Amino acid sequence: MRLILSQRAQKLSSSAIREILKVTERPEIISFAGGLPSPETFPVERIRASTETILNTAPMPALQYGPTEGYMPLREWIAARHSTGSLQIDPADVLVTTGSQQALDLLGKVLIDPGSRVLVETPTYLGALQAFSLSEPAFASVPSDENGVQPEMLTPDLLNGARFMYCLPNFQNPTGRRLPLARRERLAQIATEAGLLVVEDDPYGALSYTGEALPSLHSLMPGNVVYLGSFSKVLTPGLRVGYLIAPQALHRKLVQAKQAADLHTPSFTQRIVHESVKDGFLDGHIPKIRQLYSQRCEVMLAAMREHFPKGVTWNRPEGGMFIWVTLPTSVDSSQLLEKAIAEHVAFVPGAPFFANEPQKNTMRLSFVTVPPERIQHGVAVLGALLKRELS
Amino acid sequence: MRLILSQRAQKLSSSAIREILKVTERPEIISFAGGLPSPETFPVERIRASTETILNTAPMPALQYGPTEGYMPLREWIAARHSTGSLQIDPADVLVTTGSQQALDLLGKVLIDPGSRVLVETPTYLGALQAFSLSEPAFASVPSDENGVQPEMLTPDLLNGARFMYCLPNFQNPTGRRLPLARRERLAQIATEAGLLVVEDDPYGALSYTGEALPSLHSLMPGNVVYLGSFSKVLTPGLRVGYLIAPQALHRKLVQAKQAADLHTPSFTQRIVHESVKDGFLDGHIPKIRQLYSQRCEVMLAAMREHFPKGVTWNRPEGGMFIWVTLPTSVDSSQLLEKAIAEHVAFVPGAPFFANEPQKNTMRLSFVTVPPERIQHGVAVLGALLKRELS
Repeated sequence: MRLILSQRAQKLSSSAIREILKVTERPEIISFAGGLPSPETFPVERIRASTETILNTAPMPALQYGPTEGYMPLREWIAARHSTGSLQIDPADVLVTTGSQQALDLLGKVLIDPGSRVLVETPTYLGALQAFSLSEPAFASVPSDENGVQPEMLTPDLLNGARFMYCLPNFQNPTGRRLPLARRERLAQIATEAGLLVVEDDPYGALSYTGEALPSLHSLMPGNVVYLGSFSKVLTPGLRVGYLIAPQALHRKLVQAKQAADLHTPSFTQRIVHESVKDGFLDGHIPKIRQLYSQRCEVMLAAMREHFPKGVTWNRPEGGMFIWVTLPTSVDSSQLLEKAIAEHVAFVPGAPFFANEPQKNTMRLSFVTVPPERIQHGVAVLGALLKRELS
Repeated sequence: MRLILSQRAQKLSSSAIREILKVTERPEIISFAGGLPSPETFPVERIRASTETILNTAPMPALQYGPTEGYMPLREWIAARHSTGSLQIDPADVLVTTGSQQALDLLGKVLIDPGSRVLVETPTYLGALQAFSLSEPAFASVPSDENGVQPEMLTPDLLNGARFMYCLPNFQNPTGRRLPLARRERLAQIATEAGLLVVEDDPYGALSYTGEALPSLHSLMPGNVVYLGSFSKVLTPGLRVGYLIAPQALHRKLVQAKQAADLHTPSFTQRIVHESVKDGFLDGHIPKIRQLYSQRCEVMLAAMREHFPKGVTWNRPEGGMFIWVTLPTSVDSSQLLEKAIAEHVAFVPGAPFFANEPQKNTMRLSFVTVPPERIQHGVAVLGALLKRELS
């Protein structure tokens, strides 16, 4: 058979992270590589009760085809959840997606032509780079520091002709950074003045360890933002229910793209999510996730202080699932990973998260699925390995 | 805000069918427009039992992220289901998709560049035209007659440079036609000689009214075919579980495209499907669907013979969910639809199912969700309307 692949397919490569995750499923490996939430936080009894209620009260619509836009009561719940005093979300602007990964795919299809400029943080979420890459954009990395992306670096040259800027202001994947209020306000001001569309991806926003939240970019400039949310990190990821909130002109096109992509997100999982969250369940549940993640983050930070050699630096997350580590420039973290796996510890090298020039001396550590004593042991192993590398 | 849509998004339009379906949800409308299976056939108790088993035995993996390729026991079941004496399917060739609609999206991404020639039947499934269109192919309609697509019309000019041919050999949507054995064999011979990749979409294959099946194109030329299957028409569509079977070189690229599209199909719904079908349940369940659909098809055919005027022709389906009606060339079925809806009857005009020159005097009737007396009444209304149009 004569198989001719499309140009975009020829450029496709598998996610380094997912390939690594396959290795790290072996039980002897202490894995800081995962981007998975801790299953200890899954509200199994709640899901069970929701499922029973749905199959008792409305089995047919839960098992039948449904509208592309999503299950209306869930869209209404999402709209209410994100409405504030000054910002009222219309349920018509909500589109339920098959995980928020699908929102990235739809946005790529609808907004990117080959060569279109797309602004991203440095580094940024690998899954977004993969989804957008299928539409062959020209990525431009906006410089970032330990507080996240730097709005002042959005020069007219960068802004001019950019289709959109992709941004994770809360506990970013991969860095765990949260964008400070002053930067959010400055970014909103610059984007509004330039007429720049901003895609705000917010899967981790609820996971602030203190519970204290900063205003979303969406709330600061509603007309300029597509907001992406997800139930994966606050309920469970295996249901694959996410959503976006977009201005109508864009929403309409995204619905058409979704219709062609999978007709609609499963009716059954949408209803399970709605039944599970509709009466305020998350308000009691999310604090438990915050507490678990905060504790494990503290354990990892303490172990890093104890075991990591001088010259290695990292941030202190205020929420979320990740710590970002910068090694001396002489160390390539992907070579380090091979040695670490030989000693039964895994992490994710930082390079694939860079759209342009990779910083090979970086790595992402996730602490949420690993029990405290294994965090301590794994960090000790990494620390010893790093000391050998640097001596 | 300055919103610049991609070229493909500017060309996107909403499915005429789904827009019509919104109107036809009103209870006073007798709708022959749906492409939905009859909810009477949904095995609610089976789904309930499967869900309970999963939440009792393996709640964590059912609610956690999973592999992009799909849940391995389900992939193994699918491979075994489609293996025959001469054709042994490797589970590694199976990819679980979020409905088989997603398989069309992934194939478009991986196989089509702007202007690539894609061969389709005349008419063909609208959802495939929509999914492929996002990659901007040049569709070439292969002539079809009352027995389906005509392999002899696959001239060297058409074959030369074609990326693939898209085909629904069983009870096609929209025509209900089944491709006869001799044509399958001839198509396999031509495709094999030309090295042509064939995408065989088979959501309705199990719904043969007599239970007698013809060999799949996949079984006649395994190396040349991507086979698309679905649980939507034999179990329930609201779980959105479909699958494809593809040669490894193509499978690998499809997995990468799926990873970017939604990471994976919901772990929970995949496991519900597997738990529901693993012990042979479908072998007892599918005959009940066949019986219901066959009876309703007979009712509709009898009513059409009674009420439709001379000059209107249609086929006699051997399975599936659709009858295809050809009106005198003077009648435009989309204009007829407006009048029919005013009299509370709906159908789908045929024109959107043509990739190139539409035959506006055609329409698709679905009978599976409508009780017999309402089928008779609806067809009588349509018949009276047609008689007025033609007098």
